[in-house]
Amino acid sequence: MSRIVKAASSGDKFKKGVASKPLHEPTLEERRKFLLGGLGLMGGAAASSLAMVPSANASNLPPNLPSWSKNLGTGVVTNPYGQPSRFEANVKRRTVDWLTADRIASISFTPLADLKGIITPSSVVFERYHAGLPEINPNEHRLMIHGMVDRPIILTMDDLMRFPSTSMIRFLECPANGGMEWRGAQMDRVQFTHGMLACCEWTGVLLSTLLAEVGASKKASWILAEGADGAHMSRSIPMAKALDDTLIVYAQNGEALRPEQGYPLRMINPGWEGNTCIKWLRRLEIGDKPWYQREETSKYTDLMPDGTAREFTFVQECNSVITSPSPEKPMREKGKYWIEGLAWSGRGKIKQVDVSFDGGVSWRETRFTSIVLPRALTRFGIEFDWDGSPALLQSRAIDETGYVQPTYAQLRTVRGTSSIYHKNAIHTWKVNPNGGVVNVQLT
Amino acid sequence: MSRIVKAASSGDKFKKGVASKPLHEPTLEERRKFLLGGLGLMGGAAASSLAMVPSANASNLPPNLPSWSKNLGTGVVTNPYGQPSRFEANVKRRTVDWLTADRIASISFTPLADLKGIITPSSVVFERYHAGLPEINPNEHRLMIHGMVDRPIILTMDDLMRFPSTSMIRFLECPANGGMEWRGAQMDRVQFTHGMLACCEWTGVLLSTLLAEVGASKKASWILAEGADGAHMSRSIPMAKALDDTLIVYAQNGEALRPEQGYPLRMINPGWEGNTCIKWLRRLEIGDKPWYQREETSKYTDLMPDGTAREFTFVQECNSVITSPSPEKPMREKGKYWIEGLAWSGRGKIKQVDVSFDGGVSWRETRFTSIVLPRALTRFGIEFDWDGSPALLQSRAIDETGYVQPTYAQLRTVRGTSSIYHKNAIHTWKVNPNGGVVNVQLT
Repeated sequence: MSRIVKAASSGDKFKKGVASKPLHEPTLEERRKFLLGGLGLMGGAAASSLAMVPSANASNLPPNLPSWSKNLGTGVVTNPYGQPSRFEANVKRRTVDWLTADRIASISFTPLADLKGIITPSSVVFERYHAGLPEINPNEHRLMIHGMVDRPIILTMDDLMRFPSTSMIRFLECPANGGMEWRGAQMDRVQFTHGMLACCEWTGVLLSTLLAEVGASKKASWILAEGADGAHMSRSIPMAKALDDTLIVYAQNGEALRPEQGYPLRMINPGWEGNTCIKWLRRLEIGDKPWYQREETSKYTDLMPDGTAREFTFVQECNSVITSPSPEKPMREKGKYWIEGLAWSGRGKIKQVDVSFDGGVSWRETRFTSIVLPRALTRFGIEFDWDGSPALLQSRAIDETGYVQPTYAQLRTVRGTSSIYHKNAIHTWKVNPNGGVVNVQLT
Repeated sequence: MSRIVKAASSGDKFKKGVASKPLHEPTLEERRKFLLGGLGLMGGAAASSLAMVPSANASNLPPNLPSWSKNLGTGVVTNPYGQPSRFEANVKRRTVDWLTADRIASISFTPLADLKGIITPSSVVFERYHAGLPEINPNEHRLMIHGMVDRPIILTMDDLMRFPSTSMIRFLECPANGGMEWRGAQMDRVQFTHGMLACCEWTGVLLSTLLAEVGASKKASWILAEGADGAHMSRSIPMAKALDDTLIVYAQNGEALRPEQGYPLRMINPGWEGNTCIKWLRRLEIGDKPWYQREETSKYTDLMPDGTAREFTFVQECNSVITSPSPEKPMREKGKYWIEGLAWSGRGKIKQVDVSFDGGVSWRETRFTSIVLPRALTRFGIEFDWDGSPALLQSRAIDETGYVQPTYAQLRTVRGTSSIYHKNAIHTWKVNPNGGVVNVQLT
């Protein structure tokens, strides 16, 4: 048998055996049935039958050879910094035109439906600018650390490279992620409902190391982080977080930070609002009270039903979403599908993710298909045998603290309907009989 | 004090305080000494002194503002698939012109010296082609699985997406990595001495899942993997590995495989020769003996001192290298440096990495600065206070099986001098008094 197939792979003997082209590409189920039916489980007869598998592209199927198998390709370093295949041009960041008044202070979204695993490619990490994207010369960039310290200092990028370095894989999420859904919009892509989300390997110097270097006062309790962009984007960070795991980051997914992510230097507060993770970081001031900057008073606070506003709600609580199927990844014919998605919690590791196929009436526990790290995206998946009926797909994550992702009703009972930030309610995709997937909101 | 600094950050009051430009950019040590000496550890006097820090770029230091802090930047999605800063153009794959006769069947190398953490950006993962890089239309690509199976099958890419998916972060190394060093060359970059190495998050279907789908015979013991490139690059893989952790991969670092890495489909055999990880995978044949293809007989075997050749030496043994300092990352003035590098083992997790500053006479244990995963790159680091004397830097890794990375002498005692593949000897960087780093080979 191996001899026959080898002969086939060197030429086109089997090509002539394909008498006619069927009208449609056979489904996976049809192929299984065809092969099982035609061969009666007799493995020995398999090789000669392979050429009879019906296909609209029979001339491109093994054992027939497409053009790229019969010619030399291009050589090395035709592009010393590689790019995706042109067949993947659809995998890109996207904006929602009506969302902001201009593109200088706006948002683009991560294409979650097309991504796999837990690492988000740097090229498609969502953007959020308050005064646009600055182009910074790293040789002229400085980080000043001052305030309630013994030894204020101004550091170059080269200086920073001489401190002990730490890498960690952590998610990054804008606290406004899903905010449009809270306000009643039902966006037609998971890219828009949940795409202000990413997970990267961040490398830099622990802020605690730099605080030891400058001799931060024991009376200090807050740190102001200020960006070098035109907005001087600034946030106040409690000292306890700074001494825990705040990282002053110069690299992302192995290479230098991308310009959109704060090149050459940013702060990462793992598990906290992306907004606190100041990009293009130029200044850290050590003090004993928060600064009440614009972006922690008029914005990035949670307006409660009684008219008061919660401030400094830093943690991104436990959340999850099914990325496939999704509006971008509809089902096709009936049969088995791999249902998968992402879960994350600003408080630690994900402990469990359940999926419902009936809008939350019954739940099945999924399994993790990636490594499970604290404050990182976690990939979950489960098999689903779709019979063609309408289905209401939901995911519900539980983190290691025992926190269970709430329903919209539970969230609104506490937070009302005026919030924008920190929407982590269970999301619902409706699968229609034609396989199309739409965004519905179950109350 | 915070009031004074705030005033400074809104204008250029401190600019006028810088009376003259010194002749050189102050070193980190000089800044520390200057600040300590000038301020006498009095934090209260710090703010006004900051403007006195000498600098060749005083006009760009905080609290003075560079142009990018005073203007709006560009908006979102000016590039929906982002790119590195133009200041990082030097971080790219490189070739060695004399190494191969042409670029169609050649090699490019990963720029290890510039990378951080353990994830290798897909754009700079080393290349190795046997017939060039094919451009494959994923809609026309097929995977055939046949041979000693009950149900031979031909799968489309869409079919593959319906099987359970798994993601794992694993290294990928060409078995010829460092082979030039073995032969006596002393390449002038860590990119060339060790750069046929990468580590990515790979996502796909476990081969064991597909073998269950087709009903592989219990008598089967080997699998032939064949690429769709013009070389039909092929390797025989033992069934035990296939049932352990071999992954049929469609995604890399979150997005679709890059063309250079086998788009749309490849095999990954974690911890094994990169050469076995067939790219552009089109065919899996299940059998009961190896196929003895060209690339596992005339190549990718180890020529021993007695003239015989070891074949099927799959595992990439425990190895390590210091990436900074390195020829690309020289030291500058005396003082503290962060020495860091990468360690990996095809047999599991890295247990310990030691570093020597005196050519292997004495050793200090480093610490891990990344997550430690089996068959993945592991980042290690250690502080080094350089007094300006010549130093011989080495790293020595030990994996969880207890295997200790050998010296060149130990390796040659067993393997002689005719090998090309599987060079994992302890590597030496010589640091010269001027801070320059050169590649030397200690026997």
